[in-house]
Amino acid sequence: VAKVKAIISVSVDGFVAGRDISREEPLGKGGERLHDWVVVTKSWKELQGGEGGETGVDDDVSREMFEGIGAVVMGRGMFGGTWATGDEWNAWEGWWGDDPPYHMPVFVLTHHAREPLTLSDTTFTFVTDGIESAVAQAREAAAGKDVLVMGGGNTIAQATDAGLVDEFDLHLVPLLLGGGARLFDHLRHGQIELEPTRVIDSPKVTHLRYRVVK
Amino acid sequence: VAKVKAIISVSVDGFVAGRDISREEPLGKGGERLHDWVVVTKSWKELQGGEGGETGVDDDVSREMFEGIGAVVMGRGMFGGTWATGDEWNAWEGWWGDDPPYHMPVFVLTHHAREPLTLSDTTFTFVTDGIESAVAQAREAAAGKDVLVMGGGNTIAQATDAGLVDEFDLHLVPLLLGGGARLFDHLRHGQIELEPTRVIDSPKVTHLRYRVVK
Repeated sequence: VAKVKAIISVSVDGFVAGRDISREEPLGKGGERLHDWVVVTKSWKELQGGEGGETGVDDDVSREMFEGIGAVVMGRGMFGGTWATGDEWNAWEGWWGDDPPYHMPVFVLTHHAREPLTLSDTTFTFVTDGIESAVAQAREAAAGKDVLVMGGGNTIAQATDAGLVDEFDLHLVPLLLGGGARLFDHLRHGQIELEPTRVIDSPKVTHLRYRVVK
Repeated sequence: VAKVKAIISVSVDGFVAGRDISREEPLGKGGERLHDWVVVTKSWKELQGGEGGETGVDDDVSREMFEGIGAVVMGRGMFGGTWATGDEWNAWEGWWGDDPPYHMPVFVLTHHAREPLTLSDTTFTFVTDGIESAVAQAREAAAGKDVLVMGGGNTIAQATDAGLVDEFDLHLVPLLLGGGARLFDHLRHGQIELEPTRVIDSPKVTHLRYRVVK
């Protein structure tokens, strides 16, 4: 049965981005540090069309990220263009250039409607009627494969709150960031039991997998 | 060299106690759930003067908690009596009865001065001049052994902020509590790098040990 997975890198104090997110610093102050472990891996470099990179445990975990995934859900913060309105918003094509690393349908949760955007083999569809709709559309598009909710924290929290997430992959980065965007700051329905199903530890990051107990 | 260790159970969303902490519910709504893993262990039951209990990985970790520890620091919330003033405060003897499970000097960080309290072989000293003083007094009393900062979250965050913590043992409980007292909600000095030095996973809880990189 296809699952909805939420995958994100988070600091030990629970932040997925730093303070003062901006066009120049989409991950906020110090937020890039959260992705240090992944951007050096061989699989991540391949995903960006590059070569080289490190192999090992972190690379294995990075490589898994899109395995079995048929569609992606992300928030507008992750897609970017939050500073833009009107024509500028409609012209914003994400952070990833002409060939985004998704290669599958992506559903962007936003309050700002616009026409779908196709770049290479990735189509971004903008969903304005809420997280349930975004995940339902992603499920349909995934055609039996899993759906990946990638972030940011608010989008994952909304999906969690709505009972839509089946599994979390949290990459716990050994850092106290001290401030920024929290992963779980908007949960209205607490007391959600999880089951730890896998722990992989490496010097750079602890990979925690949880199944949501429903 | 003697260390200052912070040890606490925390939910995956970062809470060390639930909402609405009170005399009747010192750990707040749902907070007791965070300690489910430890209270069933053989070592914990022995610490309370009881018998029986489960053995295994969680018991091993629980047994380590006071190993090599010469003094404890805790906040007034953990000691209790936060609802009391005057004579009632002076008469409050903690949650643990006549024989508290510490058996060593305990320093209680509080704004409310009172004379030291000795129960069996545990003496509680009330420190009103801040976390640095509490940890310094604990170090002195520990006489070369380690100091254990036990909580709550605010006390651990203060010690962390002051650069006093050398090592964290975080018992990560597979639960999204959704609200309550956060472990790391008061950090003013973020961007503290940690080094993961040990990960022990069990079905009930993931035991994460971090060294603070100074």
